[in-house]
Amino acid sequence: MAFSFQDIIFSLQKFWADVGCAVMQPFDVEMGAATFHPATSLYTLSMNEWRVAFVQPCRRPQDGRYGENPNRFQKYFQFQVIIKPSPSNIQEQLLDSFECLGIDLERHDVRFVEDDWQSPTLGASGLGWEVWLDGMEVVQLTYFQQIGGISCFPVAVEVTYGLERLAMNIQKKESVFDIVWNGNEVSGSLLAPKCCANEGYYKTYGELFMRQEQEFSVWNFEEAPIEDMESEFQKSISCARVLLGKNVVLPAFELCIKASHLFNLLESRKVISVAQRAGYIQKIRSLACLCCEKWKNSES
Amino acid sequence: MAFSFQDIIFSLQKFWADVGCAVMQPFDVEMGAATFHPATSLYTLSMNEWRVAFVQPCRRPQDGRYGENPNRFQKYFQFQVIIKPSPSNIQEQLLDSFECLGIDLERHDVRFVEDDWQSPTLGASGLGWEVWLDGMEVVQLTYFQQIGGISCFPVAVEVTYGLERLAMNIQKKESVFDIVWNGNEVSGSLLAPKCCANEGYYKTYGELFMRQEQEFSVWNFEEAPIEDMESEFQKSISCARVLLGKNVVLPAFELCIKASHLFNLLESRKVISVAQRAGYIQKIRSLACLCCEKWKNSES
Repeated sequence: MAFSFQDIIFSLQKFWADVGCAVMQPFDVEMGAATFHPATSLYTLSMNEWRVAFVQPCRRPQDGRYGENPNRFQKYFQFQVIIKPSPSNIQEQLLDSFECLGIDLERHDVRFVEDDWQSPTLGASGLGWEVWLDGMEVVQLTYFQQIGGISCFPVAVEVTYGLERLAMNIQKKESVFDIVWNGNEVSGSLLAPKCCANEGYYKTYGELFMRQEQEFSVWNFEEAPIEDMESEFQKSISCARVLLGKNVVLPAFELCIKASHLFNLLESRKVISVAQRAGYIQKIRSLACLCCEKWKNSES
Repeated sequence: MAFSFQDIIFSLQKFWADVGCAVMQPFDVEMGAATFHPATSLYTLSMNEWRVAFVQPCRRPQDGRYGENPNRFQKYFQFQVIIKPSPSNIQEQLLDSFECLGIDLERHDVRFVEDDWQSPTLGASGLGWEVWLDGMEVVQLTYFQQIGGISCFPVAVEVTYGLERLAMNIQKKESVFDIVWNGNEVSGSLLAPKCCANEGYYKTYGELFMRQEQEFSVWNFEEAPIEDMESEFQKSISCARVLLGKNVVLPAFELCIKASHLFNLLESRKVISVAQRAGYIQKIRSLACLCCEKWKNSES
């Protein structure tokens, strides 16, 4: 019997709390990757010592498949750990975290595959590895060298688990939608209900999110209003720049996150030409870099 | 020694998971109260049996005080439990959850104060109680009678903890900003780090969120662009109505949540007259009701 989805989250939180991370909450703005969470993008820059772990719902509008593909979906959950300075035993800690999820390392094939990482919109890059579990990438491990165009010193390490892929391996499921979210069919876990009154009450990922995948695929590909989003994109950028002129950084950075999501939606609506694409990315990156610069200057 | 903020969250998650709730994640859209989370507002309507618990960051723009008031802030965390049908021993369960946080009921004054609840924008209402701990409201307990103008049958119960107030009591702090978020100065808890290498690493609520309170107070009261928000409000409402005409409910409901937050921001910018206010609320409520109606019809 394997861990439920919520048990995987809880166990990772406990594991990383045990090594000293503060467990933070998801950020309440739509974003494409947990790296946009201010706890990663901004705080990692300003703090000399910083250790946090959190879940982040992520949206990638183009990846939706109307719920018809068992492996592709437009909203999913990342579990992210940031530690600065990066500990020398981070790879070992990562493997230990697998074991705390009941993954027997002697029976599974775990590989570190070099994969340097960059986020063009965030002006961030680093050296890193994909971590493959039985042939599927389930974790990305990156040493941040730059965030917002600023060198990150001392270097921080980011560990990002793809929770659905991890859960599919742990629960031996072929489809994301079959993942068991909670419940007492799973044992050996921290959160399994003890109370016999609740036997048999569990939810699958599909019961919770299938309709979301179906309806948001319609939104992302067919209905999201193009002209409104284009004008909101421009307004977000210019409004953020006004705020930065007054050293109001967090609301400006939030507008940057929103602009980035609007760009992703415009891409899924297929209205951005190849030539325009570079211009959009450049606008987001230069805003992100300015946010990071203002943030770092005001913190030091 | 008392529980840290993250330990309070974990302990509540574990407590409610033990009685059979699925622990869900916060919704990634700005909202004024956890009741707007689709897991509460929509799923409670359509499911005959539904048990979930989750944290939700909430934003109340008007409550910001630039970080200068130890008890008033524009963003905070609710912990919400929804159980349908409502169990007969819910008050007892709530008291048990206090005990699992280390609150000795014989040494504290706990009172249930009748306080019927309604959300004009959500078209929701119910019979309920404020739960006072040593003279301060820390929990609201509500039997939902209506959501989105639709009668809720069987009746569901909503339990909403104000996590900051609870933590201030548990940690005996006078200011929200002094709450200890994590770390091993606290004992007897699930998440206290065991590793001696991390001694002394902890963060306070103020270290994590003071700057957010300062800067978002500037945004909420001085900088959020009035005309853009007015036009975005209208567009959100009309776009959502188009979606509902095509039975695309979740993205429409998300626009409803966004419209509600825009309304709150316009109120904090003090541009809504008493006469206009009713019109705004009516627009949000009628959209929320239509979302709920479409949702319920399509699920049954």
